Amino acid sequence: MWRELAPIGRDAGSGGYRRYAWTAADADCRAWFRAQAEARGLVPEVDRNGNQWAWLGDPLAGDAVVTGSHLDSVPDGGAFDGPLGVVSSFAALDELRRRGAEFTRPLAITNFGDEEGARFGLACVGSRLAAGQLTVEAAHRLRDGDGVTLPQAMAAAGHDPDAIGPDPERLARIGAFVELHVEQGRALDLSGDPVGIASAIWPHGRWRFDFRGEANHAGTTRLADRRDPMLTYAETVLAARRGAEIAGALATFGKVAVEPNGVNAIPSLVRGWLDSRAADQDTLDTVVAAVERAARDHAERAGIDLDVVRESFTPVVEFQHALRDELGTLLKGSARGTGRAVPVLGTGAGHDAGILSASVPTAMLFVRNPTGISHSPAEHADEDDCAAGVTALADVLEGLACR
Amino acid sequence: MWRELAPIGRDAGSGGYRRYAWTAADADCRAWFRAQAEARGLVPEVDRNGNQWAWLGDPLAGDAVVTGSHLDSVPDGGAFDGPLGVVSSFAALDELRRRGAEFTRPLAITNFGDEEGARFGLACVGSRLAAGQLTVEAAHRLRDGDGVTLPQAMAAAGHDPDAIGPDPERLARIGAFVELHVEQGRALDLSGDPVGIASAIWPHGRWRFDFRGEANHAGTTRLADRRDPMLTYAETVLAARRGAEIAGALATFGKVAVEPNGVNAIPSLVRGWLDSRAADQDTLDTVVAAVERAARDHAERAGIDLDVVRESFTPVVEFQHALRDELGTLLKGSARGTGRAVPVLGTGAGHDAGILSASVPTAMLFVRNPTGISHSPAEHADEDDCAAGVTALADVLEGLACR
Repeated sequence: MWRELAPIGRDAGSGGYRRYAWTAADADCRAWFRAQAEARGLVPEVDRNGNQWAWLGDPLAGDAVVTGSHLDSVPDGGAFDGPLGVVSSFAALDELRRRGAEFTRPLAITNFGDEEGARFGLACVGSRLAAGQLTVEAAHRLRDGDGVTLPQAMAAAGHDPDAIGPDPERLARIGAFVELHVEQGRALDLSGDPVGIASAIWPHGRWRFDFRGEANHAGTTRLADRRDPMLTYAETVLAARRGAEIAGALATFGKVAVEPNGVNAIPSLVRGWLDSRAADQDTLDTVVAAVERAARDHAERAGIDLDVVRESFTPVVEFQHALRDELGTLLKGSARGTGRAVPVLGTGAGHDAGILSASVPTAMLFVRNPTGISHSPAEHADEDDCAAGVTALADVLEGLACR
Repeated sequence: MWRELAPIGRDAGSGGYRRYAWTAADADCRAWFRAQAEARGLVPEVDRNGNQWAWLGDPLAGDAVVTGSHLDSVPDGGAFDGPLGVVSSFAALDELRRRGAEFTRPLAITNFGDEEGARFGLACVGSRLAAGQLTVEAAHRLRDGDGVTLPQAMAAAGHDPDAIGPDPERLARIGAFVELHVEQGRALDLSGDPVGIASAIWPHGRWRFDFRGEANHAGTTRLADRRDPMLTYAETVLAARRGAEIAGALATFGKVAVEPNGVNAIPSLVRGWLDSRAADQDTLDTVVAAVERAARDHAERAGIDLDVVRESFTPVVEFQHALRDELGTLLKGSARGTGRAVPVLGTGAGHDAGILSASVPTAMLFVRNPTGISHSPAEHADEDDCAAGVTALADVLEGLACR
């Protein structure tokens, strides 16, 4: 199953994946999903927002148990973030059939569209649209780096952009959603567990900082005559790190765009994106306010105009306690469990499960990541841990859907 | 003349020019040059390195007086840097014909190819090749941002890339080269003169700093576990400014490239280009060494690998004193002069005239730039000053070529 998926969207140079929403690589991933569904006698379906479903049992019966993740990637992403959840879902179904499990509730496996937001700058577009957390108007305004709008990209990929929008009937038919994901930190590595259960997703957001100065010749403009936004950007990058350190939070400038971006031209514009996350809302507010204040101070002194735009924000997500506790019981009590409690851990990363948790009882399983490295070709999970993840997911699905 | 040139390669959004070597915009500029030459009965010619010439008199006679500049631009460049020299050359010839001047030496007007280096990262490719300051092998290795090599780009534009190389016979036929250029600083504005004569070009170069860290998820990687090259880049940007301030030199990071450049990904690579210039070689060496030392210190502390590559370098250029003094005399003594000495000034910007000065007696005229702004759509010269530039160039050409 992995073997067919592995080469899709892989960059020969970096070894990383470039599976962006509504591209050729994305279409290949979707064809793979459909083939996996059909090979297992599941009924494939694409919903109005471009999310893929594979159904066992009646989709309309209600109280369905749904599992899955996403197949798209960040730029030069790893092989596991997303695909591990989808592959493990199919593998868990295979395992349950080997066990002779009989399903008493409908089961679906999903591939949510555009989870990473690598192309249009907003994460979880597929699940946000379905859950009504992204308006159709706002989605229609999304543009990629080449100026292609989301509707244009969807239409080019054969999906009707006029169909997108909230999908409450579909969500109402889901009794439980469980997403398995490779851990994106080292908590399981430090605790020595192959699998964990998610407690909450930290509040997080993206802020765009536009530093505008004055383009000029780098070889002839006196330092005193310059309004160079690169300097203010650099001060802000360092201020973000300091602010995050003080608050025990995370703050990162990982993306930057410069105009005109010429070696001998003082920039007219440096645009940097701040990603910030913290365990609670107050801490996050404090960090972002500190970064913005530092940026404004430096901008004012250097004659730089600064605009700060919050491009996305997701408040703290507490997964449903009842479902979380049920997963803990299922994993501890199952014949394959060790009898030891499975650890419960928070995460700074956003997920479709986080979006859906506002509409549907939702839980997540994490598989150990020995280095914690994520969003990189070096992202990894050991084969034994992946197998333990499949077993755990099978146990959970059996417990939820088979009795 | 200006009116036909003005729309070529102009970006509707910024109002800036994007006339990169061997592109469609470049071809349009070349067609304009050829048409201007033919309209005046000059014989157009393209040399082996893609530089354009327009001849009045016998190109093979030797001791020719040559004037001109370039038509390509930096990204979002202004209308004057380059084109003012070419347009003024044609206008000065028109003026000399109105004066009834009789030419005793061959005259040529030139458009040197790829002066700005905006596409392939190396400035003055056309004149460097002709003067033997860039080897054919090195030129064949040049690549643009899309991976297109210079030979591929030349061939696509209909120029034979196998023909490029040193052109000493051609240069030996030049008795004097005079390049008129818009000033890229405010010296003439401060002294109150419409026109000046160049003394020297500061030594200058480009250094590429590759900061390599470890790509990781911005939302889940603890600050202590990060190797984030953006932080070291930011420290280096600020160190460059401080180093230039201390030394009275110029240092600029105007171009940056980030991998993977995702909002929620700690970068694996931040590549920044340093442009640095100073009035003398020792000062320049001191500044660049200070920037590199600061970068290495910060890199070591943050676990970042650093490579520094000098991508180009041009030593100080002193224009020929005899020709410079002759220009001063011609401009002071001419019927149209004020009797006042024309100011002589240095510049931090590189020019084809600087390259050619190693092979040919070379001089430059500068036209006042009221804001000093250059390499920007806001670059400007007043119409009266442009006319004064044409008159001065005509005076010089008359003095050199007509008696």
